[in-house]
Amino acid sequence: MSFFDLVAGKPLATSEERAEHIGPIAGIPVFGLDALSSAAYGPEAALTLLIPLGVAGITHIVSISFAIIALLAIVFFSYCQTIDAYPNGGGSYTVASENLGETAGLLAAAALMIDYILNAAVGISAGVGALVSAFPALLPHTLALCLTILLILTLINMRGTKDTGVAFLLPTYLFIGTLLVVILIGAIRAIAASGHPVPIIAPPHLPVATSMLSLWLLAKVFASGCTAMTGVEAVSNGVAAFREPTQRNAKRTLTIIIVLLMVFLGGIALLCRAYGIGATDPTGTGYQSILSQLISAVMGRGWFYYLAIGAILSVLALSANTSYADFPRLTRTIAEHDYLPHVFKIRGRRLLYSHGIVALVGFTSVLLIIFGGVTDRLIPLFAIGAFLAFTLSQAGMVMHWKKLGGKGAVRHMIVNGIGAVATGITLLVVLVAKFRDGAWIITILIPALIFLMIGIKRHYTRVDSEIDIDRPIRIDTLTQPLVVVPLDRWTRITEKGLRFAMKLSSQVEAVHVDAEQCRAKVEQMWQRNVATPIAQAGQAVPRLVFLSSPYRFVLMPLVEHILQLERDQPDRQIAVLVPELVVKHWWQTPLHNQRAQLLKLLLLLRGNQRIMVINIPWYL
Amino acid sequence: MSFFDLVAGKPLATSEERAEHIGPIAGIPVFGLDALSSAAYGPEAALTLLIPLGVAGITHIVSISFAIIALLAIVFFSYCQTIDAYPNGGGSYTVASENLGETAGLLAAAALMIDYILNAAVGISAGVGALVSAFPALLPHTLALCLTILLILTLINMRGTKDTGVAFLLPTYLFIGTLLVVILIGAIRAIAASGHPVPIIAPPHLPVATSMLSLWLLAKVFASGCTAMTGVEAVSNGVAAFREPTQRNAKRTLTIIIVLLMVFLGGIALLCRAYGIGATDPTGTGYQSILSQLISAVMGRGWFYYLAIGAILSVLALSANTSYADFPRLTRTIAEHDYLPHVFKIRGRRLLYSHGIVALVGFTSVLLIIFGGVTDRLIPLFAIGAFLAFTLSQAGMVMHWKKLGGKGAVRHMIVNGIGAVATGITLLVVLVAKFRDGAWIITILIPALIFLMIGIKRHYTRVDSEIDIDRPIRIDTLTQPLVVVPLDRWTRITEKGLRFAMKLSSQVEAVHVDAEQCRAKVEQMWQRNVATPIAQAGQAVPRLVFLSSPYRFVLMPLVEHILQLERDQPDRQIAVLVPELVVKHWWQTPLHNQRAQLLKLLLLLRGNQRIMVINIPWYL
Repeated sequence: MSFFDLVAGKPLATSEERAEHIGPIAGIPVFGLDALSSAAYGPEAALTLLIPLGVAGITHIVSISFAIIALLAIVFFSYCQTIDAYPNGGGSYTVASENLGETAGLLAAAALMIDYILNAAVGISAGVGALVSAFPALLPHTLALCLTILLILTLINMRGTKDTGVAFLLPTYLFIGTLLVVILIGAIRAIAASGHPVPIIAPPHLPVATSMLSLWLLAKVFASGCTAMTGVEAVSNGVAAFREPTQRNAKRTLTIIIVLLMVFLGGIALLCRAYGIGATDPTGTGYQSILSQLISAVMGRGWFYYLAIGAILSVLALSANTSYADFPRLTRTIAEHDYLPHVFKIRGRRLLYSHGIVALVGFTSVLLIIFGGVTDRLIPLFAIGAFLAFTLSQAGMVMHWKKLGGKGAVRHMIVNGIGAVATGITLLVVLVAKFRDGAWIITILIPALIFLMIGIKRHYTRVDSEIDIDRPIRIDTLTQPLVVVPLDRWTRITEKGLRFAMKLSSQVEAVHVDAEQCRAKVEQMWQRNVATPIAQAGQAVPRLVFLSSPYRFVLMPLVEHILQLERDQPDRQIAVLVPELVVKHWWQTPLHNQRAQLLKLLLLLRGNQRIMVINIPWYL
Repeated sequence: MSFFDLVAGKPLATSEERAEHIGPIAGIPVFGLDALSSAAYGPEAALTLLIPLGVAGITHIVSISFAIIALLAIVFFSYCQTIDAYPNGGGSYTVASENLGETAGLLAAAALMIDYILNAAVGISAGVGALVSAFPALLPHTLALCLTILLILTLINMRGTKDTGVAFLLPTYLFIGTLLVVILIGAIRAIAASGHPVPIIAPPHLPVATSMLSLWLLAKVFASGCTAMTGVEAVSNGVAAFREPTQRNAKRTLTIIIVLLMVFLGGIALLCRAYGIGATDPTGTGYQSILSQLISAVMGRGWFYYLAIGAILSVLALSANTSYADFPRLTRTIAEHDYLPHVFKIRGRRLLYSHGIVALVGFTSVLLIIFGGVTDRLIPLFAIGAFLAFTLSQAGMVMHWKKLGGKGAVRHMIVNGIGAVATGITLLVVLVAKFRDGAWIITILIPALIFLMIGIKRHYTRVDSEIDIDRPIRIDTLTQPLVVVPLDRWTRITEKGLRFAMKLSSQVEAVHVDAEQCRAKVEQMWQRNVATPIAQAGQAVPRLVFLSSPYRFVLMPLVEHILQLERDQPDRQIAVLVPELVVKHWWQTPLHNQRAQLLKLLLLLRGNQRIMVINIPWYL
């Protein structure tokens, strides 16, 4: 087994595909990390905006959280229906393009692509950010840490869906388990103390209120909290990754993820109110995250605290994994509709669409490098992509049921319709609330991406119409080509080339570019070694042509001559023989001129349909 | 006229060569800058070592300078003889290898190559160093300034020998003129004051003596002063660049350069003693160069002072130009003996050996970048290369005259013999005196270079013996090759490929790699579009072969199959047709798979003498 196989895994046969399929246990780490880890930053983002309200703020968080949970429930029901309707993976792109037309589909595609790339960058940098705030000595290495995690995620994901699920099982379930324990114990304590439990470690005092609640503030808080909903569409996009019964497994996975997320959001909100926990100023010195305060208050600062915080950190960093799972599937689907390069359709050695992973890693590392690994400011951006995709997908489902008709169609339409309206309104709120924070970038990027995709589609359509042919092969006029052989001195390479030319065609032309002014010598060599013996054998003697080259250029006169030949013989193909020396070791390359390579390149660039290049290698 | 032509000059025809030849006027800037600029640092280097002797030191500088001048005279006479004997350019390499054997020649070649590269780096950084000490604000930009000068020199030199001479006329003759004026006026004043002239601006007081003269110190001073002799071999190496009468013009140029250098060295030494000028500590704050002190003492600090200092700075920086003139000629000569890659033999558009210039610029910029533009420490190194070359060249000339015999041979042998012994002793002195300062690097580099050159020669010899052929073309067994055509779906590209294959040979095999498990579809397409119509026309139907690919690889099974075919048919050539889509714009490249490129590469790497690649381009 080679080292490469050891790292990347042995290649998987196409027939092994079923064994790569996963169930809900592995499905949660693969598709759920993005959604679940949102519990760590969604409530935090909302509460941070409530700081100016003081104690009053934390009373509002409960109602806002439950509004988000209700939205989550609507989205959940409609995605379940999507999974039922699209057993091969019904991402927003598929649903929107099939039911609302190509433009809506492209809108969803662009939104989702941006969303996944941002999610990968933000997930990794959030994890590293938390790690760095725990160990400030690591601060100068932020970018290096981000790129290292990106590399590790890539290596794991390149091994395939199944191995990824296994690799991330432990941190995922540790995160779920510890958070559930905190919420459960916290809830019991709160009930036992009739809603006023005493925290083991008291959270920082809430600041004095400096402003009043306004509708605008409420909208902004809701929009920030909604970042907790990103990643919910992942399962419906990746249905094909689940094992039989595919749809049931996918729905079961989605249910578990959504229920857990609801418990987390609701539990965190209620406990924050019960324990009087509010956000601390993230730019101040006394900053402490909501979850850190909550765990301290409920469980104290023992080993459990550090276990739970460790699990949160790793799940944040690994939440990028959802992008690895879905981005390649998304780009494959788009590429199948000719809107992205066809390489995204190729399945790699481990049955993955590896080019999608490469593209994701490329864009993510560019983002990380540009922002130096600090991508917090990108958080508002990716909720927009997610909600745009939600809305289009739900609206698409409404049309889907309408077209399908039949029993229960109206009920389905109502469920998806509510989802569409709710997520659509949320999208507007988020867009308005976050416009100046960077959401405007998305409103430029999405149209740009759409234009790019339309351009790609147009190119493919044109190519197809150009090379398309609906008749059988023509077998008339199979005349031999004219073969051109560049000639320098008389070597075995020259002999091989001339012989091969004579095998292919009875019309051969040898061309000597006279850059060194030694025409007589070449003529004599030709007469002795080629013309005389061939004439004696009674065969057609190849023509010898001299090209003058006052400026000592070798290739340009040759290429011009070949183009001229092609013009002179309009119904004939020209085959240019290029003898090439192949060295044994790469470091011998500079010892030989690269004219053969250059000639091939020039003929490709300047040639046309009737000029072919025949490469005659000579191995040393 | 294109922008490129404007910068690099129009291409020159081979027949225009004579017009590019130069006379003594342009020869001095082209070949003499290295030697003449030495006057600016040779005496300085010697006097710096004499600082500990105080006033006594500057009395010794005269005798040491005259010893160097005597050595210069010996070298001059022997190089004149070399020019007579080698009208096509008698660099140390040619003389040593023709008369002392290949090993001596390689020793000279390695020494000279290192010498020229060091000279370019040191010249430029010395010029920039002087500039920076005049304008300390430029200090942070040292490296950028060095690379800019390198670029300018390259651009000028790329225009050819003649244009270079014209471009450097002004600074060169300004330098010569101002220095001559200073020496003349200084001498007149000194004579008028009976050897004790009053300086217009008094030089800094000489320090109190702290040590006594020792033989070891004297040797070191002499070795340092000898750096003034580097660059003297340049003319004899570049004889071919001069116009008719070639040898007379070359000798006239050499004479002017040597006489000027002698006047400079003698004049500076005598005036230093007369005006009491000694070196100042180069690391101290009161540092002032010898020439600066001398010009101030003789002429004061008026406009003339700044004109002269400016000329010195520019000549220092331009002294790198000697390397540009000689390095490419040297590498060409070595490449003609197969000891360096043959590209060095190609003459570029301006009749120059441009690859040599590229190599020189490459190595020089690497040196400049490694040392951050401060290459002062390299100065001792390059005297060694120069003196090694002197010695080998003189010794070679002794053998040359011995072989030639005849009238005057003995006289010639004596002249060159004295030269060889004198420069040989100097080489030993320099080597011992500078060994710990870095000369040891040269003793490693030279053997390494020699080994490299021997390896290159061995490679060329082996290649020649492999491809050499002393019989005419064989014209028996001209059997058609077996043509292999990869097949995917039925397009115009497929048809074109199949048609071309059928034109070339009656034995054609179409190969489909079944990576997507659609064998039946391909079989049906084949039957309808190819097999049936060809059979109906009564022609030989190509074979269709399916290759299974459980791991979805496309290229590997194809290459394996071709290699197997080649093994199965030991007396046949295999031609592999590679249809390739050529896009109109480079940015369309990622939209199409690069399998054609990869297949060509794989076949080249893994193929053998009997596998040819035929490229069928399809232009969109």
